Amino acid sequence: MLKIGIVGATGYTGIELMRLLSGHPGAAVSVVTSRAEQGRAVAEVFPVLRGHVDLVFSAPDDARLGECDLVFFGTPNGTAMEHVPKLLQAGVRVVDLSADFRLRDAGLWSRWYGRSHACPELLDKAVYGLPEVNREAIRDARLVANPGCYPTAVLLGFLPLLEARLADPLSLIADAKSGVSGAGRKAVMRTQFCETAESFAAYGVGGHRHLPEIRQGLEAVTDAPLGLVFVPHLLPMIRGIHATLYARLQDVSVDLQELYETRYRDEPFVDVMPPGSHPDTGSVRGANLCRLACHRPQEGDTAVILAVEDNLVKGAAGQAVQNMNIMFGLGETAGLTAPGLHP
Amino acid sequence: MLKIGIVGATGYTGIELMRLLSGHPGAAVSVVTSRAEQGRAVAEVFPVLRGHVDLVFSAPDDARLGECDLVFFGTPNGTAMEHVPKLLQAGVRVVDLSADFRLRDAGLWSRWYGRSHACPELLDKAVYGLPEVNREAIRDARLVANPGCYPTAVLLGFLPLLEARLADPLSLIADAKSGVSGAGRKAVMRTQFCETAESFAAYGVGGHRHLPEIRQGLEAVTDAPLGLVFVPHLLPMIRGIHATLYARLQDVSVDLQELYETRYRDEPFVDVMPPGSHPDTGSVRGANLCRLACHRPQEGDTAVILAVEDNLVKGAAGQAVQNMNIMFGLGETAGLTAPGLHP
Amino acid sequence: MLKIGIVGATGYTGIELMRLLSGHPGAAVSVVTSRAEQGRAVAEVFPVLRGHVDLVFSAPDDARLGECDLVFFGTPNGTAMEHVPKLLQAGVRVVDLSADFRLRDAGLWSRWYGRSHACPELLDKAVYGLPEVNREAIRDARLVANPGCYPTAVLLGFLPLLEARLADPLSLIADAKSGVSGAGRKAVMRTQFCETAESFAAYGVGGHRHLPEIRQGLEAVTDAPLGLVFVPHLLPMIRGIHATLYARLQDVSVDLQELYETRYRDEPFVDVMPPGSHPDTGSVRGANLCRLACHRPQEGDTAVILAVEDNLVKGAAGQAVQNMNIMFGLGETAGLTAPGLHP
Amino acid sequence: MLKIGIVGATGYTGIELMRLLSGHPGAAVSVVTSRAEQGRAVAEVFPVLRGHVDLVFSAPDDARLGECDLVFFGTPNGTAMEHVPKLLQAGVRVVDLSADFRLRDAGLWSRWYGRSHACPELLDKAVYGLPEVNREAIRDARLVANPGCYPTAVLLGFLPLLEARLADPLSLIADAKSGVSGAGRKAVMRTQFCETAESFAAYGVGGHRHLPEIRQGLEAVTDAPLGLVFVPHLLPMIRGIHATLYARLQDVSVDLQELYETRYRDEPFVDVMPPGSHPDTGSVRGANLCRLACHRPQEGDTAVILAVEDNLVKGAAGQAVQNMNIMFGLGETAGLTAPGLHP
Repeated sequence: MLKIGIVGATGYTGIELMRLLSGHPGAAVSVVTSRAEQGRAVAEVFPVLRGHVDLVFSAPDDARLGECDLVFFGTPNGTAMEHVPKLLQAGVRVVDLSADFRLRDAGLWSRWYGRSHACPELLDKAVYGLPEVNREAIRDARLVANPGCYPTAVLLGFLPLLEARLADPLSLIADAKSGVSGAGRKAVMRTQFCETAESFAAYGVGGHRHLPEIRQGLEAVTDAPLGLVFVPHLLPMIRGIHATLYARLQDVSVDLQELYETRYRDEPFVDVMPPGSHPDTGSVRGANLCRLACHRPQEGDTAVILAVEDNLVKGAAGQAVQNMNIMFGLGETAGLTAPGLHP
Repeated sequence: MLKIGIVGATGYTGIELMRLLSGHPGAAVSVVTSRAEQGRAVAEVFPVLRGHVDLVFSAPDDARLGECDLVFFGTPNGTAMEHVPKLLQAGVRVVDLSADFRLRDAGLWSRWYGRSHACPELLDKAVYGLPEVNREAIRDARLVANPGCYPTAVLLGFLPLLEARLADPLSLIADAKSGVSGAGRKAVMRTQFCETAESFAAYGVGGHRHLPEIRQGLEAVTDAPLGLVFVPHLLPMIRGIHATLYARLQDVSVDLQELYETRYRDEPFVDVMPPGSHPDTGSVRGANLCRLACHRPQEGDTAVILAVEDNLVKGAAGQAVQNMNIMFGLGETAGLTAPGLHP
Repeated sequence: MLKIGIVGATGYTGIELMRLLSGHPGAAVSVVTSRAEQGRAVAEVFPVLRGHVDLVFSAPDDARLGECDLVFFGTPNGTAMEHVPKLLQAGVRVVDLSADFRLRDAGLWSRWYGRSHACPELLDKAVYGLPEVNREAIRDARLVANPGCYPTAVLLGFLPLLEARLADPLSLIADAKSGVSGAGRKAVMRTQFCETAESFAAYGVGGHRHLPEIRQGLEAVTDAPLGLVFVPHLLPMIRGIHATLYARLQDVSVDLQELYETRYRDEPFVDVMPPGSHPDTGSVRGANLCRLACHRPQEGDTAVILAVEDNLVKGAAGQAVQNMNIMFGLGETAGLTAPGLHP
Repeated sequence: MLKIGIVGATGYTGIELMRLLSGHPGAAVSVVTSRAEQGRAVAEVFPVLRGHVDLVFSAPDDARLGECDLVFFGTPNGTAMEHVPKLLQAGVRVVDLSADFRLRDAGLWSRWYGRSHACPELLDKAVYGLPEVNREAIRDARLVANPGCYPTAVLLGFLPLLEARLADPLSLIADAKSGVSGAGRKAVMRTQFCETAESFAAYGVGGHRHLPEIRQGLEAVTDAPLGLVFVPHLLPMIRGIHATLYARLQDVSVDLQELYETRYRDEPFVDVMPPGSHPDTGSVRGANLCRLACHRPQEGDTAVILAVEDNLVKGAAGQAVQNMNIMFGLGETAGLTAPGLHP
């Protein structure tokens, strides 16, 4: 049984990790840390976990974390990079759910995250944890940068087109919509119930931190210059991301359906829906799954790819557990086989 | 592996049964019937089950159902009673999630359900499937009447007080609130999104079909006349029941907390919360659990009991699986151990 | 045209006052204050008011407020009492939407609000602004304490029964449910979208600040001791209060429908619904209206009164404008005649 | 006072027309028809209108409608075209909120609406009721085809770019999201609360009936071939449309902000937001207003225009009243000046 630590376990990715791991056959959480809640029982802070998690939040303590086989970071950006070097030295493997190790370019990271990186030398050692692209590298990784929620959906949706050189890489548009839990668990006005319910708006049109992450992932599979517009929106619901992806096809004779089915045939957590489908975020609620559908409206030259996922599962904690499974040679789907919750 | 049939599998209790049974270690669904959807794949009608349920809806067929060990009925009221006698004769055990076998008195049933009962002789053979009251009888039952969603919460909340003769049985008030899924999966105006979202109202104040069912359950543990007011309300959310229960105490010196903890100490699916708690329906979403909290405001003579459950799980499909587990000597918690989904 | 000031105009009652007054024929807002937003345009902070309110938030300034005919306080509890004496001295009339002047007993106020009152001598000069009870006194009041949202619904629902000596005053139960806007406009975890949506719970069962306010209002019309249990709940919706009120009748021969219709016949903002009705909060969204329905389930001895209102309108800002209209001899319904918004 | 009739007054556009007209200074509704609800009081079917509308639904009756100055049709597609010719002959002016007269090409209409048109000769007499484009023609129109909800937002968003020949007309993408009320008031599964809440999906990617309407509106201002992809999505909320519009700029030196502000300077119901804005559908809830914001992300060659409106107001009933005001020389803003409802 793997010994697991979770740093920053009071965020939504933290609760979700505890939920998924509570039923995992090969891993058990032994340390959960939180500065704010130290000393309180997990079951008290999160009644949903009463009877399932019998731990008490402790202050982050490198010694105790050093006894874990794997530590997940569910911390705000900028925290993991302060702790990870020591943990790696202690032989602990790390999956970081924050953005600290997602960009390979330290300068780019600094520009988007507004501070200098604490351990830039680790950036190219970190493996970007999108199993559908990097499965082999994840296997041996000491440090996995778990992808952002938007990038997971957008990359899985665009990659087959770009890998096959079918889309004009200058024409990419990702119109993405996220449930509110994507904003994390914190008390802010913007995500107060009364500000968010019965309301819908775009945000960050001028530039969102997931943009360079998506660009990096797309540039890895194309050698041409990339033109990408990414517009995120906030949905009045808790969980779920829907990315509506547009690309101009350079060859309209291609069978998109076949292309996508072939690309993801062996992927346990990517589901290419039948032709004509409109996948619903509700169909992946709580499940580690990205569902895709391919359209070419009016038989024109624009491909429209629809991608849905639960931002907290395939977009965060579920993918992190998937990465853990790969890193430790457990079955990739261990602990991740439950269907979603609908309605 | 038990062979399971589900009749009327396209309602919300039907989907939920399939979800819960898809991960059950000792039972597998082999027949799902639906007149409306016969011939269509379950995964097509319910994309959430793609990859988890590989069955096709068939028309109800007593022969095929007769090969099952257990058949669940998720049908509208009035359907199960037409099929159950034949299935019982064929040696199949039945858990009926509709109201057909919940009342022991055929005349009372007729008054509330507006038709005569098709097999009144079975009414006193059916066991009311509330394990916290009838566990032993359920073990040997051929036919279990699975409790209604409101009655489950209201009974679990009131029973300790009445069993201990602590409450004036004439003073009972159950102010209950249910998520919309309690109304079932059908296309009606009242539960259209625009009519229900951002809105809240009582309904059925003059008389709701769960009233005689609750009365019957309470009368079973008291020998005094019963005065019960039951007011249901519709909540603008999908899942969850919250019952706020009021009873006048005949003895205010009792320690309610201890009474409830003792009563439910060995119950795997009833959770008495710490003193001062306000359980939230969100904390049991998707879980087979009823959470209770006991209050005595201003140290007066009124006990206020708060009871929450997921109406589709402990209030329907989860309790049905729990009953199945008991009937077949499987571990009572088999397939029912996952925590809820929060947020 | 009356000159109006609003202190603490960035809360939800503040926005709502500006919305209602923007179309008022006899009053115009000339000063809006907010320490947090001073210097910013109202239309920038609240885009919904772009084109309707052309003011800039200023710091509270007794001189400028002193030039107003009427000042509304939409501030957190404890603020108005620091400013009101000076304004009254300057000849300004005040409607306070906070709780500072609602209780006549300074000791009681201190116990519930956790500090001593800054001007206890004003408590019995303040008029409790429930027009359906105190219309005449409001006319001449210099200082009106605008009722709380829960008390408005509960009092309007219970008063006819108590005034007519029909209910056992020891038997009162108010099971009340409020939309999230009742918690005010502030960044706290409890009312974050992800904590509130798809969830329902009671709160403050042990004691809520509206309890003494309701008791005071009920005690004013009865000379017997009062037994009242008040349980508030938080609804996953923005606006609306639903109070479900229970009282044991001392005389079951009374015609409740006629009693209520007679009591409220001339009230412009109380609507007694036809027999058998279940009023919906959605039917009063945005409107200054309390809708009531009377039931006596199973023809027993318990009256069930249903009361709905929009907590921000009849439960706050609308009632405040109604009070202003009365105080200044404007038509009582001026600016308050628009129907609600449904769906 | 204009005499107004509403045919098909039980849909959401019908209720909304009654709400807006109940406060209109120059028009009064005198006939409301509904086959399904004939004989019932409006206030009984729609409690929100109790006290505001004192009419009874009648069966459609050409004689009574013939006495009106103006008749609004809020009927399903295909109904208005059966009645309009007779009304026009009787001298009644008509604003049709359905799609019957929106397309000028009868063949195109037939293809998208699946039947032949009943009065194709009226198609080019009907004026497309988008005042920001056709104000002069609306003034004298006998028959106004009120625009669809999506087309209103998309056209107002794209038109300045196309009129100024700034966008490549082959590059247009409209990613649009609508609240559920856009689907109308009818009992269907897709818009049941449990199917829609906490969920989000695209629909009609293969082709939506608003596509030819949008194309027609855009082609009117450009002489080049048009390439438009339109993807509608269903939002888990009641009211509001958000269109996110993408166009490739042929000249990136243009000041989009100035272009839009100039274009709409004199429009009372189009609000160009300050640079960098992300308008929220909540800011126009209940208001007759389309808010726009202009972006050019990363200073690239793609313009991103954000357009929001309340689909039932500026997207339907509000625009219809605006058209009525223009047709009868009332002030264009009469009855439409109330701010939206927020929160």
